[in-house]
Order: sequence, then structure tokens, then C-alpha cells
Amino acid sequence: MQLCNAYHESGPRIGLGQGDQWFNLSAYLARHVDDFPWMYAHPRPTMLDLLENHPNLLADASGWLEEMRSKTGSRAFAWPAPGRLLAPIGRPTKIVALGRNYAAHAQESGNEVPQEPVLFAKAPSAVCGPGDDILYPAGVKRLDPEIELAVVIGRRARRVEEAEAMTFVAGYTILNDITARDVQRSHQEKKWPWFRSKSYDTFCPMGPTLVLPDEVTDPHNLNLTLSVNGEIRQRSNTGMMIFKIPLLIATISSYMTLEPGDVIATGTPEGIAPLNVGNLVECFIEGLGTLQNRVVSG
Amino acid sequence: MQLCNAYHESGPRIGLGQGDQWFNLSAYLARHVDDFPWMYAHPRPTMLDLLENHPNLLADASGWLEEMRSKTGSRAFAWPAPGRLLAPIGRPTKIVALGRNYAAHAQESGNEVPQEPVLFAKAPSAVCGPGDDILYPAGVKRLDPEIELAVVIGRRARRVEEAEAMTFVAGYTILNDITARDVQRSHQEKKWPWFRSKSYDTFCPMGPTLVLPDEVTDPHNLNLTLSVNGEIRQRSNTGMMIFKIPLLIATISSYMTLEPGDVIATGTPEGIAPLNVGNLVECFIEGLGTLQNRVVSG
Repeated sequence: MQLCNAYHESGPRIGLGQGDQWFNLSAYLARHVDDFPWMYAHPRPTMLDLLENHPNLLADASGWLEEMRSKTGSRAFAWPAPGRLLAPIGRPTKIVALGRNYAAHAQESGNEVPQEPVLFAKAPSAVCGPGDDILYPAGVKRLDPEIELAVVIGRRARRVEEAEAMTFVAGYTILNDITARDVQRSHQEKKWPWFRSKSYDTFCPMGPTLVLPDEVTDPHNLNLTLSVNGEIRQRSNTGMMIFKIPLLIATISSYMTLEPGDVIATGTPEGIAPLNVGNLVECFIEGLGTLQNRVVSG
Repeated sequence: MQLCNAYHESGPRIGLGQGDQWFNLSAYLARHVDDFPWMYAHPRPTMLDLLENHPNLLADASGWLEEMRSKTGSRAFAWPAPGRLLAPIGRPTKIVALGRNYAAHAQESGNEVPQEPVLFAKAPSAVCGPGDDILYPAGVKRLDPEIELAVVIGRRARRVEEAEAMTFVAGYTILNDITARDVQRSHQEKKWPWFRSKSYDTFCPMGPTLVLPDEVTDPHNLNLTLSVNGEIRQRSNTGMMIFKIPLLIATISSYMTLEPGDVIATGTPEGIAPLNVGNLVECFIEGLGTLQNRVVSG
């Protein structure tokens, strides 16, 4: 199953789908508000509200899908072409990103392969959605895309063990960790933080949908490619991650609580090269679809 | 005027006060829901909802206060002793913090005084409130407190000019930028990000209230002190900031959009020394009150 966040003039609509069949989950929830007491405080739920109030999202979504399907004849919750999609999570509570989590990428950047996860933050205000423009900021001299598998947290996780870590995952999506490389390098030389170089507006395209774990048999065996104007630059497999998702969740949650709607960006493989204004960037991850964004002058 | 976020078993209650007189703003808003159409989507508003939907918060709060006062006889919105206070903003959309924004602190840490603002992120999940325990994490060898004036953003700010920057400020509070100094130093040596050392759970006490700009005549002339077990360690004045608030808002918003509920931590003065388990940390800023937290074994 997949969830999507679709633009609507009166506020985002959440869709629930499987294969080519999509339903209007927002309408379904509104119709059954008495079954969902949390909706009295959030009558127009966002994806974040949904995650916060459904820690067992996969099981719940399965039930909702079945019920909506059984009413297909009445078209009660029919979902037309989804139109413009927004980022699955519009404003994550935090984005914890991994530096140097693929050995070949650490090496191409002239860095040592780390002995422990290297964590940095991207500002939630940097998130944009499928099809949105990536703004090339004036004053930035080198802008790099980085394709990453993003893990979306579904339940509050504090000091969890690796063995139970995957039960805290709500789903997966694609994240393009846009980086102002010249800013990052100059700040690193001064031993300054990475935050600014990673957090300009539009530096975090995400999408196209939130894919639930039932459709991702093994998140550590997904082919991924990043292409610019149709030419492939990054080609790898999530199996090449140094620190795997259970260890990441266990490690991060040993420092800071992971909350529903938090995003972990699991790092990027080798093949980094700069973008130019006008470039079309396409990020593909097996089973998660393609995230397309064009670079425009910011 | 000041706003506070008070614990209540059915969810936080927002109080609005001036001097010793406090009113139950949550009750007032609920009673007048027809005047506040945004409340249909947020019937139990948080401070974040209030900020997002009242870009002219100071003027609106002034009107609400006057109206509640005029009904004092009926005690309609009387607010008993506020009880346990929570952080004014429970989960800021982001926390943008300044490194080395007081020259004497940069020098005592052996760092150059920066030529431009040094920005880092603290995780929103690190926020805790007045009176909450600061957890000393196992494995951390040196934990430092840092008193800072926190600026809370009230209106969406993108690429704003210094001259208009102060109109984007909703108010002020105290922030204690707790830092795992040994982790920060070891990461800096490797040119790694600062994020983890600044973002452990409870590393961001905030409060006690959100003080609106009518009570802060000059945010660049506030005495501040941080004491540990009654002994003053940091004593300075916000006038010693290298980069002042209008420049910070203009600079940050030139990179990333500032959103209602975002917090800017404006940096700490000299006098940094480590904490031990059992220490009581008191942060005082003139006009903003005192933020007290005790260090416990985490």
C-alpha cells in the first residue's frame, strides 16, 4: 500500500492506494469520525496527524483499504487522478540525515569511511514535493544532488534495540539531499556546522508517495539511480549502506527520541556531480517510483 | 503581555497575562470560535496554531486581554495559579542556533570571532520545559549549559530586510543550549556536523513564558545570568551579541524561510563550565524571568 499527499485548494488530501487503485482516505476518515476520536482535535488531518494517531498504520490502512474497496460500487471514496502531489510529509518534525553512509561516496569525497553514523540536520522548511523547482541560490557556486532512501518514522522511538527497530518504520520514500557543496566545504574547513549548506529552501525534495512496508520486502536491496537530463550519474543499491536501517534507528534513538513523522535520510552512494540551472533531476528507487525536479535560478 | 503554555491532563492550555493578572486564552478562543474560523481545523489550538493563525499576534492579544479584563467581574476566563508550565513552543518547526555570537565566548573556546553568523540546528525533540530534568547522557563526558536569548518567529519570513526584520518577531524566551562538549569537540576535529552534540533529549530547556515585544523595550539591552547551584557563571548583556537580531533574521531568511514557531537561539556569552548530576541550573534574562532545570543522570 502507498499513501499520497495531494494538493487541494482547501488543504491537502490524503490518498491510500495499492497498484493502480487509489481511494480518498481523507473523505473516508471524515465519514467515520466517530471511529477516530483523535479527529475531533484534527478534523482536517495531515499526514503527520495520521502518523501520530495511528502507530499501527500498516494494519489500520489494510482495514481501511478493504472497506473502501467493498464500497467501490458506490464510488463512495473514489479517487480521481491524484493531480499534483505534495511531499508525503510537508513539515517533518525533524530530518536526521546521514553523511558518508556509502563507502564509495565517502572515498570519492576524500573522506574516511566513518566508524559510526555521521548525523546532520536538514531544516524541515527545505522540504519540497515532486515536480517542485529546486532553487539554485544566488551566491552558491556548486549545487549537488544526492539520492537517498528516506525512512519515515511511525512510532515514538527512544533507545530502541536493533532487533525491534524496524517496527518503528511507517514507510519509505525518496529524498534528494541537495547540498551547496562550496558552502559545505568552506564551512568544514573552519570546523563549522553543516546545517546551512544542507538547508536552503527547496534543498529537500521528497516523494512521490509514502510506500508502506508491505510493498518493500527488503529495504536493503533496492536499486537506485539518479539521472540528470536523462543521463545516469548515481547507480547503486541500498544494500551498499555501511550502517543499515535497524542500526541507524537504534543509534539515533539512543541520542534523541524519534517521533512520528521524523525522516531519516540514509545517505547517498557515489557519483556526485554538480547541477546547473535548467537541469532535470530524476531520482528512482525500485518500488518507490521516481522523484522529478527541475533546477531553476533561485 | 506574556503567553504561557500550561500543562493540563487533556492537553496544554494557553494563558495570556500582564503583570500578575492571567487569563485562560484557550477558553476565550473556544468561546469565540465563530470569530476564529481557523479554529474549525484546530479546535484545541497549540501555541504553534496560535502563532500560525495570528500574524499580528501583539495587536490581537491586546484586544483579547482588554475584552477578558472587561469580563473579570464574571470571572469568565479567570486563570488560577498556572501550575506546571511547559515550554512555550513544545515542538518548534526548527531551531536555528548561533555559534560564537559573543566575542568573549568565541575567545574562551579558542575560536576566532566569526565574520558571518555561524548557524547550527538543534533537534526540536530536544525541547523541554521549565522545571524539567536535564538528562546527563551515559557516555557523555562533559555537559555544558549555555544561556541564550531565544527569538520566536511570528510571521513567515523569506529574504527580509534588516529594516523590517523585527516585525517578524512574535516574542522572546530563555533557551538553555545544553551541549555535549566532548562529543562536539571530537566531531569538530573530524570536521563532522555539530548536530548530535546539540540535540540529545532535554538539551533544549525553554521558557518560562513567551514574552511579547511590548514588554521588551530593547532586546539588545537585557542583562542575563546563568547560575549553577546559586553561583553565577555567566553574566553578560544581550548588547554584547556580535550579530544583532535584525541581521540574524535577514541573514537566516536569505538562506531558509523562517516560519511561525521557529526559534532562533542567539548565542551564549562567556563563562562556560561543565555541569554535574544534581546541579540546579538557573537562567535569568531581564524581563523574561528565570528558567530552572536540574541535571539528573540520563
